[in-house]
Amino acid sequence: MDAPTSARATTELLKRLLEILDEEDAFDRTGGKPVLEFVYPEELQKLLPIELTDEPASKEEIETVIRQTIRYSVKTFSPHFHNQLFAGIDEYGLAGSWLTDVLNTSQYTYEVAPVFTMMEQQVIEQSLKLVGYPPSPEGDGILCPGGSVSNMYGMVMARYKMIPEVKTKGLAGLPQLVCFTSEAGHYSITKGAHWLGLGTDNVCKVKCDEFGRMRPDELKAGIAKVRRRGHLPFFVNATCGTTVLCSFDPLPEIAAICREENLWLHVDACLGGTLLLSEKYRDRLKGIELSNSVAWNPHKMLGAPLQCSLFLIKGKNTLHEANCVGARYLFQQDKHYDVSWDTGDKSLQCGRKVDGTKLWLMWKARGTNGLRESVEIAMSAIEYFFERIKDREGFRLVLPRYEGCNVCFWYIPPSMRTQQETQEWRDKLYEVTAKIKGRMMLEGTLMVGYTPLSYCNLGNFFRMVVTCQPPPSNASMDYVIDKIEELAADL
Amino acid sequence: MDAPTSARATTELLKRLLEILDEEDAFDRTGGKPVLEFVYPEELQKLLPIELTDEPASKEEIETVIRQTIRYSVKTFSPHFHNQLFAGIDEYGLAGSWLTDVLNTSQYTYEVAPVFTMMEQQVIEQSLKLVGYPPSPEGDGILCPGGSVSNMYGMVMARYKMIPEVKTKGLAGLPQLVCFTSEAGHYSITKGAHWLGLGTDNVCKVKCDEFGRMRPDELKAGIAKVRRRGHLPFFVNATCGTTVLCSFDPLPEIAAICREENLWLHVDACLGGTLLLSEKYRDRLKGIELSNSVAWNPHKMLGAPLQCSLFLIKGKNTLHEANCVGARYLFQQDKHYDVSWDTGDKSLQCGRKVDGTKLWLMWKARGTNGLRESVEIAMSAIEYFFERIKDREGFRLVLPRYEGCNVCFWYIPPSMRTQQETQEWRDKLYEVTAKIKGRMMLEGTLMVGYTPLSYCNLGNFFRMVVTCQPPPSNASMDYVIDKIEELAADL
Repeated sequence: MDAPTSARATTELLKRLLEILDEEDAFDRTGGKPVLEFVYPEELQKLLPIELTDEPASKEEIETVIRQTIRYSVKTFSPHFHNQLFAGIDEYGLAGSWLTDVLNTSQYTYEVAPVFTMMEQQVIEQSLKLVGYPPSPEGDGILCPGGSVSNMYGMVMARYKMIPEVKTKGLAGLPQLVCFTSEAGHYSITKGAHWLGLGTDNVCKVKCDEFGRMRPDELKAGIAKVRRRGHLPFFVNATCGTTVLCSFDPLPEIAAICREENLWLHVDACLGGTLLLSEKYRDRLKGIELSNSVAWNPHKMLGAPLQCSLFLIKGKNTLHEANCVGARYLFQQDKHYDVSWDTGDKSLQCGRKVDGTKLWLMWKARGTNGLRESVEIAMSAIEYFFERIKDREGFRLVLPRYEGCNVCFWYIPPSMRTQQETQEWRDKLYEVTAKIKGRMMLEGTLMVGYTPLSYCNLGNFFRMVVTCQPPPSNASMDYVIDKIEELAADL
Repeated sequence: MDAPTSARATTELLKRLLEILDEEDAFDRTGGKPVLEFVYPEELQKLLPIELTDEPASKEEIETVIRQTIRYSVKTFSPHFHNQLFAGIDEYGLAGSWLTDVLNTSQYTYEVAPVFTMMEQQVIEQSLKLVGYPPSPEGDGILCPGGSVSNMYGMVMARYKMIPEVKTKGLAGLPQLVCFTSEAGHYSITKGAHWLGLGTDNVCKVKCDEFGRMRPDELKAGIAKVRRRGHLPFFVNATCGTTVLCSFDPLPEIAAICREENLWLHVDACLGGTLLLSEKYRDRLKGIELSNSVAWNPHKMLGAPLQCSLFLIKGKNTLHEANCVGARYLFQQDKHYDVSWDTGDKSLQCGRKVDGTKLWLMWKARGTNGLRESVEIAMSAIEYFFERIKDREGFRLVLPRYEGCNVCFWYIPPSMRTQQETQEWRDKLYEVTAKIKGRMMLEGTLMVGYTPLSYCNLGNFFRMVVTCQPPPSNASMDYVIDKIEELAADL
């Protein structure tokens, strides 16, 4: 095998990769290229040399498959990608990713990650400040592989603080523990309840008001009901930026209930946390500083590269105390430097990817001011979008307001506008939504997600999302409106 | 803010990054440069402009900090880095990382990750074959953020298969569940036991034989004892490649016990799984096909970039059934393509980094034959190392044999060789080990880890590890021996 393991060969390979990325317009943010070139799975299987074989592929074959990967992948960099809660990425964030890929190391000890340890620490410190938590060591945090894991950290910490013996003795013999989240909360709380041994039935889903926000009176009633049953409430998850409507739960009221009831308050601000960067919008999260822990994903709205999720917590040493098992092969106590810099025993994971660095680098390159500006640009785009469709024929808002980076709506095609709005009509509208989405995908000109919302009996509607990267503009918002009208003209 | 968001500006930034990496010898695999330039934490804090501020850093400042990051980070690419169970990385794997970074997407749906879905599927398929599991859909798998999470998947799946109601009802009211691993097993089982609500006391640590392998008779006795107490054994973790000694538990015997006792057998082959690639060494894992699930980290010995960890399982749909909660905003059932290609509901995570692609690309570029060859090169290097130190003055092996990629030893400096080996002498030897390590770090010429092994009352010794990347040589093995002798000459 011609193994090109010299530094020069590696540089050449990576240089060639960069050329290919450039030639294939992988960094294009103008929208001049399609968002995707959709191919059905059966067809894609035939197009790609997907099978791994005994023999190596040639350099030419590798180059071809890299081009194919770019070609048939979704261009999240496109200004017309609004399909997920993430999209394109900050280029300094990307540079940070590439840098950490090359230096391939793990976050657990200062010994193997001296610079990255400091960068993670600084990113946590600044995020604590953003949230209004005390600085370290009274505040603490950790970078996690995604928001679901960050939310699970919240649940684990809540349980440990209420019943420390749970770490050694487990749940057997304890009363049934119950957690609370709103019916609009993210499903990670439910998955967490399974994994953590609580059971998904013991996630109490609190009713929302008409804006998709948890109702404090319902939370209070739910807690009382659980207590009457002899079960043990221990954890409330409030959401800042729900997955579909991007609603913000009323934190001060919820925090007051948690204080009264002695419950841990975790805030899932995975989506909405980015608004903390702007004085103009941070009041959406008013009261977040009253919570016990927070999850925030800079890889969502802010445009940090996937994965970049922060778990933040109040309380000195709590994270370490709860999670440590003191493996001596990794966390030797007789090292030649101050081992309090070895942070790995705070973590569920052993090897842990260095996720803080990409956020650190983009934060450094933009400054907090630059990040704030990008948030305000995104918010002004979604405001423009909201205002444009509010009274426009054919568009119908799911909510008469928006708080964060999502606006949800139906599009009623011309033929349906004069018909009576019966249940049948509504069912047809829901089908039409999926149909418009299918056309978008096949044409490759736009990606906006759609979803039903079962807890309030709503069928499919569009969820339009803006993020900071690439910076959205009024023109890119107009494009969405025009494109949907065009795609649905004959429906 | 001068936001360079054009494609050209991004390309320029990344090109510049590549030049800097090249200028700073980040890809050097010759060992011509130090493994690290050690700086104490307090000093490093002063050297780096670590604080994130309101104002952006200039381009020059960013360039400087990138150079500093490279300079003060550990060079895992160096042939003299033997400090962890991972080291340098395959350059095609690195290219795969960079590619997926640019295309920034999540693994959950075919819609946003068509190519990556196929690549993950193929990597799982080939790994199932390697382990001797049935192909999909009878075999299944998922890429996880590290081996600890992969092992937790094993525990969750075992629990779910024994008591499906645990998903909805939780553990309250059930008898105490107990899991088994050897006293040399990885600490992730213990951390998992905390998180999953079992309690760390309910991890039964089975005694090992003199080679660090789980004793089947002890396992059998342990199970009986737990049953007598009225507790419920449900999970046995066997290890192929323990963290310190790289020992391999006797799988056929353990599998027979698990079958008899109706227990789930999970194999933590995070480290040792790579040996499956070579016919010459795969008998170390004989019987792995008899297990119910397996964890394997190609980011360890094989040299895939961090994070790349596979969880594999026998049983159609089990992974999905156990973990699904059917979030409709993401896993809509009325899409325009076959939604069985949407794999995200198998996962604990929601957003999930596309980790399969880097392994796919390096596997494609090397072929299974190329990967096998790299494993055999690594193993012949460790054999050489073992043979060289076996009877060499001053070196003393912890085990009189090696099975995998680790060899553990003490180095007795000249002044201690003629002294009587009392407890005091041994304590001094353990201190000397840490001292030699400290010198390595300060000199920056070599990194080999050290560890005590408390379960067999051994104090600090060196754990020498070889990996496939960069390919080790006899010369790089000699270097370790010479360097340790040199560093310890006056001790």
